[in-house]
Amino acid sequence: MTAPGKLIGVGVGPGDPELMTLKAARALAAADVVAHFAKAGNASRARRIAAGHLAPAVTELALPYPITTELPRSSATYCNRIKEFFDTSAARIAAHLDAGRTVAVICEGDPLFYGSYMHLHARLATRYPTEIVAGVTGMSGCWSAIGTPIAQGDDVLVVLPGTLPEDELAHRLADADAAVVMKLGRNLPKVRRALERCGRLAHAIYVERGTMPDAVVMPLAAKTDDDAPYFAVVLLPGWAQQREAQP
Amino acid sequence: MTAPGKLIGVGVGPGDPELMTLKAARALAAADVVAHFAKAGNASRARRIAAGHLAPAVTELALPYPITTELPRSSATYCNRIKEFFDTSAARIAAHLDAGRTVAVICEGDPLFYGSYMHLHARLATRYPTEIVAGVTGMSGCWSAIGTPIAQGDDVLVVLPGTLPEDELAHRLADADAAVVMKLGRNLPKVRRALERCGRLAHAIYVERGTMPDAVVMPLAAKTDDDAPYFAVVLLPGWAQQREAQP
Repeated sequence: MTAPGKLIGVGVGPGDPELMTLKAARALAAADVVAHFAKAGNASRARRIAAGHLAPAVTELALPYPITTELPRSSATYCNRIKEFFDTSAARIAAHLDAGRTVAVICEGDPLFYGSYMHLHARLATRYPTEIVAGVTGMSGCWSAIGTPIAQGDDVLVVLPGTLPEDELAHRLADADAAVVMKLGRNLPKVRRALERCGRLAHAIYVERGTMPDAVVMPLAAKTDDDAPYFAVVLLPGWAQQREAQP
Repeated sequence: MTAPGKLIGVGVGPGDPELMTLKAARALAAADVVAHFAKAGNASRARRIAAGHLAPAVTELALPYPITTELPRSSATYCNRIKEFFDTSAARIAAHLDAGRTVAVICEGDPLFYGSYMHLHARLATRYPTEIVAGVTGMSGCWSAIGTPIAQGDDVLVVLPGTLPEDELAHRLADADAAVVMKLGRNLPKVRRALERCGRLAHAIYVERGTMPDAVVMPLAAKTDDDAPYFAVVLLPGWAQQREAQP
């Protein structure tokens, strides 16, 4: 009987392929199978970041989401279809692991920080040898690209999905020293209103594709439209940063 | 006249040298000067992580803190001595930049996420060409090393310095879905009490040197002493993770 292969969740970082770790590059070069999530019909963003590091003979396993933002995430249909998708994806990966193959699931940013990979991890990590390769998060990539310290000293940093209700966003933004709002997309107008309500819109920075050559960076207050990709972020640097040089 | 050199804040990641990015490795190999902070009398942790990537002819610039936890951070003496230290350190780096040398300041984790580098950045980035190389944060390294998803879906993640007052820690921990408490050291008993007060001690995980071979990982409730290095962290995974596999 073949010994089972290893599952590796590989963070490939925020976008610039140079922001991949040495460990991620080695894991990809050694993997028998490289699996990647993507919106159906779109190229995988993680695949594009990792492209230069895949072994020539690697088997690729595409995992296209059956659905992304077409239905409310609270609807039973959405939940059932997504659950079935992760079940099926885990089974496809398990078949490779059972055959003794090492499977690297590539993930933008860090695998265990708001990523789809963790749904596979929850289904497979108790059954197979598993390793995680931490990655640079999208938010680190963004604040680094614009050279803006996000949090210092006693700052409390709050990471907020833009999918939260406006009241909760406003309450939490008012209460944070520094904040990052992720998952913008169609949530941008709501995020903007929440920042306005707590008097912090003037300090919010909008960043799109932060580490890429075609990055878009501007004060959120100066952005005149509401078009934002899902992966854009809003950064609200900590108070010390806003008050100028510290200590 | 010589054109000024470039200042580069280089994140070298959480500890495992393999978790350094490709970009960081290249920046270190190309730097004329590599600067690193350390507690006086101690080896620099960032220096140890980066050791394998320094050019043989590199000039090293050690920046030993004059003081760390000997005085309360709110005291005027502490503030003055630390301010003077960062002023002097910035001047030492500026002398190299003025001579046209590229200076890489190496930082554990990510340079703009609670790091000392940002005090240099605030003093130098407006005067010299500056670049930031994002790094894998210590917290990402820790949750990856133990294979524990930290935040999913609509989770709000709160990052808390353990230096905060107990009441504030308790209130913020009660209000978070997922949390990371950093800067433990002598703050550990206070952090433990704050977690107990909001009924979340049972889910807290203590991690020391997460990505290193001598890592220490245990439920915080099972840790019988109050000894913790300053860089240890407590992880409180998001609710979805605590409730088991999602969705």
